[in-house]
Amino acid sequence: MNGYFITFEGGEGTGKSTQIKLLEEYLKSKNKDIVTTKEPGGTEVGLEIRKLLVCGDKDKFDATAEALLYFADRHIHLTKKIWPAMQQGSIVLSDRFADSTFAYQYFGYNKRLSKEVLQQLYQIAVGDFKPNLTIILDIDPKIGLERSFNKAKNMDVKELRFEGREFEFHQNLRKGFLEIAKEEPERCVVLNADKSIEELHKDIVAVVSQRLGL
Amino acid sequence: MNGYFITFEGGEGTGKSTQIKLLEEYLKSKNKDIVTTKEPGGTEVGLEIRKLLVCGDKDKFDATAEALLYFADRHIHLTKKIWPAMQQGSIVLSDRFADSTFAYQYFGYNKRLSKEVLQQLYQIAVGDFKPNLTIILDIDPKIGLERSFNKAKNMDVKELRFEGREFEFHQNLRKGFLEIAKEEPERCVVLNADKSIEELHKDIVAVVSQRLGL
Repeated sequence: MNGYFITFEGGEGTGKSTQIKLLEEYLKSKNKDIVTTKEPGGTEVGLEIRKLLVCGDKDKFDATAEALLYFADRHIHLTKKIWPAMQQGSIVLSDRFADSTFAYQYFGYNKRLSKEVLQQLYQIAVGDFKPNLTIILDIDPKIGLERSFNKAKNMDVKELRFEGREFEFHQNLRKGFLEIAKEEPERCVVLNADKSIEELHKDIVAVVSQRLGL
Repeated sequence: MNGYFITFEGGEGTGKSTQIKLLEEYLKSKNKDIVTTKEPGGTEVGLEIRKLLVCGDKDKFDATAEALLYFADRHIHLTKKIWPAMQQGSIVLSDRFADSTFAYQYFGYNKRLSKEVLQQLYQIAVGDFKPNLTIILDIDPKIGLERSFNKAKNMDVKELRFEGREFEFHQNLRKGFLEIAKEEPERCVVLNADKSIEELHKDIVAVVSQRLGL
């Protein structure tokens, strides 16, 4: 496949969406074709699934149901948006991808789902495909959650199903992302997200430029 | 687990919902606790998933996405409704269950999904649990689809995503259900649905009474 697939991962309030926007602008200024997207909800059908996943009571369904819904969304996302864009040679930037499912369902929920189950679902929904580059934005969850709550207050959003979970969950989440990065050091780059928007953007540009040979 | 789980399977227009209603009335007259339900959409969350699955364009997603969504719905259905009702000792009657996924995704789509993938999903979402009894209502799809179309005209329903598929699909579907019944003869009973509502109801009562020792 042509194209290039970059995913952004990390806990709540790490600044993923802001950084994707800045990177998009930067790469467009270099005359690259860019498609930005997100999970869950990168497609029209996916938006409906996203609503189910991020709104409402945090116990409305369990980790197994969540994992099945996330992988359904992901499969639709890949077949309807990511792969077609890559076929056209675009660089696709996604706010979250499969690492989030492993981090949330396996590490965050303290292994309530086995890694084997998640790997089976990955194989069913994604196959052998992987992102070319995954940028993990790392931050102390205390700071990340504070950012996330402030943003929610300002935006009057109702997508706080995950922020409402106990603090330990978010610490496990962070550990999970770092564990994933350790397992796949070629694909994953961990960046310290506890800095200014501009500084973090520079770090991201440095990594991406090197990978893309800009 | 206490309770008893009876599923009704078959193609479009076989009369499942009518027969479930009649069986419910009959069993209630025998002082049984009955819970009737359906797939997809046996729960509140499931209803949202059902909307995604049965409405809209028939090609809005592929068999893999469908299977993941069906098993997500099924897992929520089991954990939130079927298992709790069985724990209370109820007889649960469900309009469709996992056999429909195998029939539609494996046989109907002409094996676009492997049986192995569907079995993995079954294990993830359902585990070793199975219905105590599955009643397969069998009918020539020509007759079934005609019934289904007539019902839709009268009810002004928009759930025609599956009825719109090519006829061969429905023939494969029928073969699929019969194949499943052959593989699990203890669990599955095939009944000829090309008869009057009253006659078919009598056949169903005979099977259920024998199984429940009424």
